[in-house]
Amino acid sequence: AKSFRIAVTPGDGIGPEVVAEAVRCLELLKTKHNLPLEWTNLPWPSHAWHEQHGESMPADALEQLKAYDAILLGALGDPGPVSDPNRYLLPDSISLAPLLDMRKGFDQWVCERPARLLPGARQYLADERAKDIDMLVIRENSEGEYVGQGGRLRKGRPDEVATQMEVFTRRATDRIIRYGFEQARKRASERAEAGTSRQFKTLDGRTCESQVCVITKRNALRYWGDMYSEAFEEMAKDYPDVATHHELVDAACMKFVQAPWAFDVVVASNLQGDILTDLAAVLSGGMGVAPSCNLNPDDPDMPSMFEPTHGSAPDIAGEGLADPTAMLFTTARMLEWFGRQNDEVNAAGKALFDAVAADLAENSGSRRGTREIGDAICARLEKAG
Amino acid sequence: AKSFRIAVTPGDGIGPEVVAEAVRCLELLKTKHNLPLEWTNLPWPSHAWHEQHGESMPADALEQLKAYDAILLGALGDPGPVSDPNRYLLPDSISLAPLLDMRKGFDQWVCERPARLLPGARQYLADERAKDIDMLVIRENSEGEYVGQGGRLRKGRPDEVATQMEVFTRRATDRIIRYGFEQARKRASERAEAGTSRQFKTLDGRTCESQVCVITKRNALRYWGDMYSEAFEEMAKDYPDVATHHELVDAACMKFVQAPWAFDVVVASNLQGDILTDLAAVLSGGMGVAPSCNLNPDDPDMPSMFEPTHGSAPDIAGEGLADPTAMLFTTARMLEWFGRQNDEVNAAGKALFDAVAADLAENSGSRRGTREIGDAICARLEKAG
Ligand SMILES: CC(C)[C@H](C(=O)O)[C@@H](O)C(=O)O
Ligand SMILES: CC(C)[C@H](C(=O)O)[C@@H](O)C(=O)O
Repeated sequence: AKSFRIAVTPGDGIGPEVVAEAVRCLELLKTKHNLPLEWTNLPWPSHAWHEQHGESMPADALEQLKAYDAILLGALGDPGPVSDPNRYLLPDSISLAPLLDMRKGFDQWVCERPARLLPGARQYLADERAKDIDMLVIRENSEGEYVGQGGRLRKGRPDEVATQMEVFTRRATDRIIRYGFEQARKRASERAEAGTSRQFKTLDGRTCESQVCVITKRNALRYWGDMYSEAFEEMAKDYPDVATHHELVDAACMKFVQAPWAFDVVVASNLQGDILTDLAAVLSGGMGVAPSCNLNPDDPDMPSMFEPTHGSAPDIAGEGLADPTAMLFTTARMLEWFGRQNDEVNAAGKALFDAVAADLAENSGSRRGTREIGDAICARLEKAG
Repeated sequence: AKSFRIAVTPGDGIGPEVVAEAVRCLELLKTKHNLPLEWTNLPWPSHAWHEQHGESMPADALEQLKAYDAILLGALGDPGPVSDPNRYLLPDSISLAPLLDMRKGFDQWVCERPARLLPGARQYLADERAKDIDMLVIRENSEGEYVGQGGRLRKGRPDEVATQMEVFTRRATDRIIRYGFEQARKRASERAEAGTSRQFKTLDGRTCESQVCVITKRNALRYWGDMYSEAFEEMAKDYPDVATHHELVDAACMKFVQAPWAFDVVVASNLQGDILTDLAAVLSGGMGVAPSCNLNPDDPDMPSMFEPTHGSAPDIAGEGLADPTAMLFTTARMLEWFGRQNDEVNAAGKALFDAVAADLAENSGSRRGTREIGDAICARLEKAG
C-alpha cells in the first residue's frame, strides 16, 4: 500500500507546541492501526531560519517539499501580526510569505474551511440557531486579488500611486465552482446517509438537498464579478440537484452574522474568501478550533498543505498554554484527505476528529495546558475502537 | 443666513415610502424652528426613469445636482440585489451605478458609517458588552478597488482573463487618515464633555482618550498596504493624543464579532470599508437602522449624499411596511452636516436623532407600518423643546 509522507513544519511561536500534540496523535494512530504514515520534521519555514539564513526557507524548499504528500504546518509569524506598524521585527508580509509560496508553488487552488459550531465551542451569536451552523467555505486559492502584481510609483512621495492588479481566469473560476458543486453533492449524500438531510429552495420553487452560494462584488468589481456569475450560471446546468445562490460579499458578511445557518457551500475569491473564512471561523467558535486545508485535488505530485487558521500567538509562546484543538482538527482533515485513497487512514481521521470534538464538548471553558489537552485526546484515541 | 438646498431622490422600491417620512420630519422641523431648508423631489435616479429613458438619470444629472447642498437618497435597485444571477431585470451594476457616479462626480471621498447599538435595536451578539459598541467606520470613498479599471480578455471563452485594477494615491490616503484622526479627536472631546470618556492603551503604555484603527491587507496586498501603513505612521506624529492601531481586514472582521466594543474610529479602503460597514451595520442592529454619509468635507460647491445603507427591498415595496428608521437617522445626519454652519439646523438634527432613538427604544420589536412610525416620531418632535 502507498505510504503517505508528511512534511511537518512547526514554524513559529506556538506552532511547535501544538504540532507536538499532533505528532503524538499521529504516532498513536499509526501504531494502533498500523497505518502507512511517515513524517519528517523541518525547521523551516520559520523566523528562526530567517534569522540564521536571511530567508524564511531554503531556495530549494519547494523542491524538497515536493517529495511529500502533505505539509502539516503549525503557525508562521514572529512576533506575529501585531497591532503597531512600528513594532514588528519581521513584517508579516515576509514571515507569512511561505504560506503563499506553497499555495502558489503547488497550485493548491482550493482552500477548504469548514465551519460548524461544535458542542463546547464558544458561541458568539445570540441566536440559538447558531448551533445549526454547518457550512463549508471554499476559497479560490490560486489567483485573483493575490497575484501580487502591482507596484508603487514615486514611492514615499506625496504624489505616490500604488497599484494592485486582480487577475481572474475563467479556467480557475470554473474549477473552483465545479469543486463547490461537487462538495455540495457530497455533503448532501453524507447527510442523507446520516439521516440529517437539509432543504434549500431554489428561486423557481424547487427543493434541493444542498446549495452552493457564490460570492462576488459584481456591482462594483464588474469584470470578474460578471465572469464569475456567467461561469456559475453555466456550471449550474450540470447540477440541477443543487440549489444556487449569489451574494455580494458585503451582504454575505452581514448574513454570516444574521443567519449563518442558512448557508451550505460557499465559494469565494481569494481575498473575499480570506475575509469570509475568518468570519466563518468565529462562527464556529474562533481561531482556536478552525482548520484550513490548502488542496491540490488533481495533481498527485503536488503536496497539499494543512494549517490551523490561528497565528503564532507570540504572547503565549513557550508557555505550554496554547490550545492544540485547531491543530488536531487540521490533522484529522489531513488524514481524511489521505483517506480518499485508504479507508483505514480515513477511519483514523474520523476517529481523531471524534476524539477532539468529544474533548471539546466535555471540557468547554476549562483552563488546560497544551499537553493536558493532548493527553486527554490521546487517552480517548487509545480507548476508541 | 445661508439656505440649505436638498435634492430629494426617493429612488426605487421602498425608497419613496421612507423618504416621505423624512420629508414630513423636515417639514415639521423647518416650520417649528424656522429653519433655512429647501428641497426638491427628483424622479431620478431610479428604475422607472431607466425604463422611460434608457438610463438611470439624465446625462446632465450631476450638473443639476451641483446646485444643491445635499442629496437625500432613499434606495436604489429594482428588483434589488437578488439571489439568482438569471433573474434580475436590471443588473445591480447598472441600477446602483448612480451611487458610485455621485460619490465619484462630487468627490465624496469620505463615507461615514457610525455603529452604535442603541437601546431597542436588535442585538445579534451574545456578549452583553455589545451594548457598548460605539464606533465610527470611515470608508475611503474615492478610489482604491472601486476605480473601475480593468476588463475581460476573450470574454466568454474558456481562456478568458478578467482583470480589475486597484489604484491608491498617497494624497487620498493621507486625507482619509487625517480625517480619521480629526474625527477621533472630536469624538474624544464630545465624550469628555458628556462625561463618558473612554480609554485606549498605546503599545508603548500610554493612555489616550481616542483611537484610530487603520485596516489593510498588507500581508497579501503589499503595495498599497505598505503605503497605507507608512502614511498612518507619519500622520500619527501629528496626533500624539490619539492611540493608533492596525488590523488586517480578515482579523478586523473577526474582531468586529468578537469584541467590537474595543473599536473607536476605523479607517478602511473602499472595498474593505464596504465590507466592514456592512458588518458594523449588523452590530448596530441591522440595515434597518444604519445611515451612510458620503461627504465632501472641503469643497462647498460639491453636494454630499446621504442614504440609508439598506436597499430598495422590492419584496415589501408599496405595502407601507418599510421601517423608516434608517432613513430618519440618515436625515438627522444630514442636518448635523449642515449644522457645521448653522447651530439651529444642528440642534434640529440632534432633536431628530433623539426622537428616532427614543422611538426605537420604546417600540423595540413592535410591528408598525411606515406611516405609523413616522407619526410617532413627528409627535415626539412636536412635543420636544
Ligand atoms: C497570512 C495571510 C497571507 C493569509 C491569507 O491572507 O491568505 C491568512 O490570512 C490566511 O487566511 O491563511
Ligand atoms: C451598491 C454598491 C455599489 C455600494 C458599494 O459597494 O459601495 C453599497 O454596497 C454601499 O455600501 O453603499
